[in-house]
Amino acid sequence: MSHFVHFEPLGRRGEVPEGENLLEVARALGVELESLCGGTGTCGRCRIQILSGDVSQPTASEMEFLTPEDISQGYRLACCTTLTSDCKVGVPPESLSSPQRTQVEGEELPVEPDPIVRAFPAALPQPTLEDLEADAGRLLDALERQHGLKGVSTDIDVLRRISPDLREHLDPGSGTWRVQAVVRGREIIGLLTPDLPSLGLAVDLGTTKIAIYLLDLNTGQTLAARGLMNPQIAYGEDIIARISYVERNPSHPTTLRDLVVAGINKAAGEMCTQIDAEPSHISDTVIVGNTAMHHIFLDLPLKQLARAPYIPAVSSALDVKARDLGLEFMPGSYVHLLANIAGFVGADHVAMLLAAKIEHRPGTTLAIDIGTNTEICLRHDERLISASCASGPAFEGAHIKHGMRAANGAIEHLRIVEDTIEYQTIGGAPPVGLCGSGILDVMAQLYLSGVLDEQGRMHDHTRVRTLGDEREFVLVDERDASQRTDGTDSDHAISFTQKDVRELQLAKGAMSAGIKLLLQSAGVRTDEIDTVIVAGAFGTYIDIASAITIGMLPDLPLDRYHQVGNAAGMGAKLALVSRAKRDEARDLAARIHYLELATHPDFQNTFAQSMFIGLDD
Amino acid sequence: MSHFVHFEPLGRRGEVPEGENLLEVARALGVELESLCGGTGTCGRCRIQILSGDVSQPTASEMEFLTPEDISQGYRLACCTTLTSDCKVGVPPESLSSPQRTQVEGEELPVEPDPIVRAFPAALPQPTLEDLEADAGRLLDALERQHGLKGVSTDIDVLRRISPDLREHLDPGSGTWRVQAVVRGREIIGLLTPDLPSLGLAVDLGTTKIAIYLLDLNTGQTLAARGLMNPQIAYGEDIIARISYVERNPSHPTTLRDLVVAGINKAAGEMCTQIDAEPSHISDTVIVGNTAMHHIFLDLPLKQLARAPYIPAVSSALDVKARDLGLEFMPGSYVHLLANIAGFVGADHVAMLLAAKIEHRPGTTLAIDIGTNTEICLRHDERLISASCASGPAFEGAHIKHGMRAANGAIEHLRIVEDTIEYQTIGGAPPVGLCGSGILDVMAQLYLSGVLDEQGRMHDHTRVRTLGDEREFVLVDERDASQRTDGTDSDHAISFTQKDVRELQLAKGAMSAGIKLLLQSAGVRTDEIDTVIVAGAFGTYIDIASAITIGMLPDLPLDRYHQVGNAAGMGAKLALVSRAKRDEARDLAARIHYLELATHPDFQNTFAQSMFIGLDD
Repeated sequence: MSHFVHFEPLGRRGEVPEGENLLEVARALGVELESLCGGTGTCGRCRIQILSGDVSQPTASEMEFLTPEDISQGYRLACCTTLTSDCKVGVPPESLSSPQRTQVEGEELPVEPDPIVRAFPAALPQPTLEDLEADAGRLLDALERQHGLKGVSTDIDVLRRISPDLREHLDPGSGTWRVQAVVRGREIIGLLTPDLPSLGLAVDLGTTKIAIYLLDLNTGQTLAARGLMNPQIAYGEDIIARISYVERNPSHPTTLRDLVVAGINKAAGEMCTQIDAEPSHISDTVIVGNTAMHHIFLDLPLKQLARAPYIPAVSSALDVKARDLGLEFMPGSYVHLLANIAGFVGADHVAMLLAAKIEHRPGTTLAIDIGTNTEICLRHDERLISASCASGPAFEGAHIKHGMRAANGAIEHLRIVEDTIEYQTIGGAPPVGLCGSGILDVMAQLYLSGVLDEQGRMHDHTRVRTLGDEREFVLVDERDASQRTDGTDSDHAISFTQKDVRELQLAKGAMSAGIKLLLQSAGVRTDEIDTVIVAGAFGTYIDIASAITIGMLPDLPLDRYHQVGNAAGMGAKLALVSRAKRDEARDLAARIHYLELATHPDFQNTFAQSMFIGLDD
Repeated sequence: MSHFVHFEPLGRRGEVPEGENLLEVARALGVELESLCGGTGTCGRCRIQILSGDVSQPTASEMEFLTPEDISQGYRLACCTTLTSDCKVGVPPESLSSPQRTQVEGEELPVEPDPIVRAFPAALPQPTLEDLEADAGRLLDALERQHGLKGVSTDIDVLRRISPDLREHLDPGSGTWRVQAVVRGREIIGLLTPDLPSLGLAVDLGTTKIAIYLLDLNTGQTLAARGLMNPQIAYGEDIIARISYVERNPSHPTTLRDLVVAGINKAAGEMCTQIDAEPSHISDTVIVGNTAMHHIFLDLPLKQLARAPYIPAVSSALDVKARDLGLEFMPGSYVHLLANIAGFVGADHVAMLLAAKIEHRPGTTLAIDIGTNTEICLRHDERLISASCASGPAFEGAHIKHGMRAANGAIEHLRIVEDTIEYQTIGGAPPVGLCGSGILDVMAQLYLSGVLDEQGRMHDHTRVRTLGDEREFVLVDERDASQRTDGTDSDHAISFTQKDVRELQLAKGAMSAGIKLLLQSAGVRTDEIDTVIVAGAFGTYIDIASAITIGMLPDLPLDRYHQVGNAAGMGAKLALVSRAKRDEARDLAARIHYLELATHPDFQNTFAQSMFIGLDD
């Protein structure tokens, strides 16, 4: 027997198949509930409120995340709840994983375009009884005669439409067929109407966000850009949850891949429409992402990547036909995937280093891309060493009581002035939680104001209270937090708990330990670092001073720091429009020495020391 | 409202959707009725007998092929008949397009194998915490270290299973992974268990028959061979009918292609099972066929090929990934398609010339591959000229009153001894009609016995009678022909009509004119021809003396003739196992000069003269 459900305030409604939990139902109806654990009841993110109707009894998992008062008000975890009657369900804004701030900005393109694909205009005489040359041969003859191209072959999917394509391009004036042949290496990968630009797509395939850029390959100009949530997020917010989903659902091995492929196809289509073009005009694509995203996207084996010693199926750069990946672009076009380095250092790291010009900066350079995994690269005396540290999802708001991702209403900056809290939210919306940069500010401000000591213990303060058996610092109290306009019934205060402090200590400790061990392995002192590049969405918005204050980043003058935005996306663009940059990325990847921190003999000790709060020494 | 149908004597039965004609119904139920015209009511081949039940009224088309007596006995054309009640339908054996004699024989493989793909054994150390190289890189390292291979890439579909594939091949003794990497050029196209042979597939894709050979690439040995009817035959026996079907059914553009692809996959699977192997072991494939079959198989545009000036989409040799053609072989493997020459001179012609060693024979050589289109090539003084003549389907039994293809019961050889007819049927079965070689013998014997004069007029003879307004020579009378054991009710005599003679005159005239114009264009006299190669299924079984007698083939001593069997299939095999032969085929195709007969100024005149019966002069 099935029931009907109505999600408020989104207005999504539908039938609920017998036995499906509300997280699955929400996904099916397009309600993007947060879920870090992939629906296993262990993250507590998919909190919803039953407004009317009857549901299953609360589970033991739910009791860990919900107070008796919560439950009396109808709050439940969607992944643990099934319907026993028709229901109306409220979705609090902090449980929604979108809309969010998605970063597609970056520095302008600092390279002379020299794309790997080129479009050659060609004029072909029509066949006659005296000139019976086949259509493909006729095109090759024209390319040889008019451009000196030799030994060229034609992709099968181009051949599959070559005859009507040529005949549609009859130029009545000259009586010839006029087209542009798009050539990559020695292969014709598509035909274009004369004068149409050759388009290229650069994609930064993040675990959380996907940034897509549509470029004119010949000018290097970005014609359109789009950021979208990675639709895989409904199946787990981190990579381990997603790999685990893939392994638990072997009969649908390509679901997660299909979601991303469909998302890219859709975004590419919309961006093309926006500039009056078609996806079949996209003649080259570069995609970067971390190793797991790369493997899921290419449908590569995951099992050996998810278990020590975390071996990728492939690390080298790849050129794959777009059709073999399900991308509906120019018929014979390729997708170039930059090389990855190791199981937890991916092509996005290489792209970031390319865009950050790590090889072209004077002196010793440290580049940091902060995320669930933080990748760090040190260049010193022509040596490049990279490492990955499991900084965890705390900076993305996970495992933090009132943490959230960078969506509307997230507190992104905060100051404690005596007993008053000054804060700024994304979109100027009423506060609903803390995003990563806000969390970092809270830590620094609590430390500077003496509420936290070096060990991270929370001391007394007018805003510190004990709830249950845990101390917490109240940032926004119930009255302020309840001034919401979205109609949902949620009156929690926004606070920062002792446990949140511990999560942050772990995260910043991992990052700080990684930096120290990298420096140590290269024999470099902290003050010898000339430049620190901070990349990534989170890194762009953080207050560097706060990060230095708590000892997450090295204690160096602020002018040595450069926040470069989505450098991975910029690196993808560079590799898209420039052969030289693509080669440089390949060389870079080949030269990077990977330092495995997990098995480093000093790791545990350094990590333990790095958890102290305060300036790094 | 739907009805039920029961086909006798085959025992196939099923429901008939409203409005479907009996030809469509038969196809859907797997009853392979003959149909030359693709179901347009113009060939009269799909004759069936309504044994019980009610059907639609006879159409005007049917009245052209059926006598009132036929109709009174329930004979109808399946493509023109729909059911109005449940019915029992009899299928006369001559209306069935199978089983038939399918030719897969040929001379043994006269070449030293040097395949384009090679399998390299490799032993890989397993990864450890100190050796984190990706799986693909680990394999490349082993190939470089153990075989000196450099700059090798790996196909995406090989990468998609490389990690489990390698781990399944752990050698417990050495602790290493042991596999064979199958390499083509600089690409790994598959992994094989150690010691398994590399298999290759050669396919001769004929309009009527498909011959498939499974070879060991390293020894050149043919491990299995199979001949199957081209399953497209249900959609028209000749190419024009099939192209017409494709054009009339644009919403199902790949149906005909899918049929052939499925047929090849199935046959390859069965042949592999037969030798205890799997289709994924097939690491290379060569396919030859006429230009239209080639285009349908590759899903290339057909419209411009079906209309003057009959331009192929592509003529050059192609290498296409098997997966892009729907063939389920080794994951990254290719299919090589030999070059075609023109709209009506295909890759099968090139393969035939390769196998017939036209370039290695002393003196002047004429090579003829007889079929619906007959391709002829003349080599003289290092020049190669090829032409195609529309000899029509008469040699395959079409448009001949009692013609049939080379199936059981077909009269294949025949002599007139005074008033007695001596004949031999395929399979020794009771006679049901005449196949091509039988038809040729009838023509020669009627001419030699004076029944036919040079103009082809049929004179009086005890066996000549007039039926309706047409004269015909009775070969097997009603009594003999009715001694059938298959239980069908068919008591037609087997005869050869004045109209049949005219059809044969057209067919042999076209061929003879083609030969004369080729000789003329090269300035060669008939008696200067040192060798005549006769290839193809039909050419293998004909009596050369009969062909010379009626003037179809040049009047040369019989020892200058060589009947070489399915030389196209042999050519495909040679190009499969030998790089040198593949290159030779490419060079051959590039050097062949194509002579267009349709627009040759002397064609009409020569054709008219060539229709006379008697020794060619």
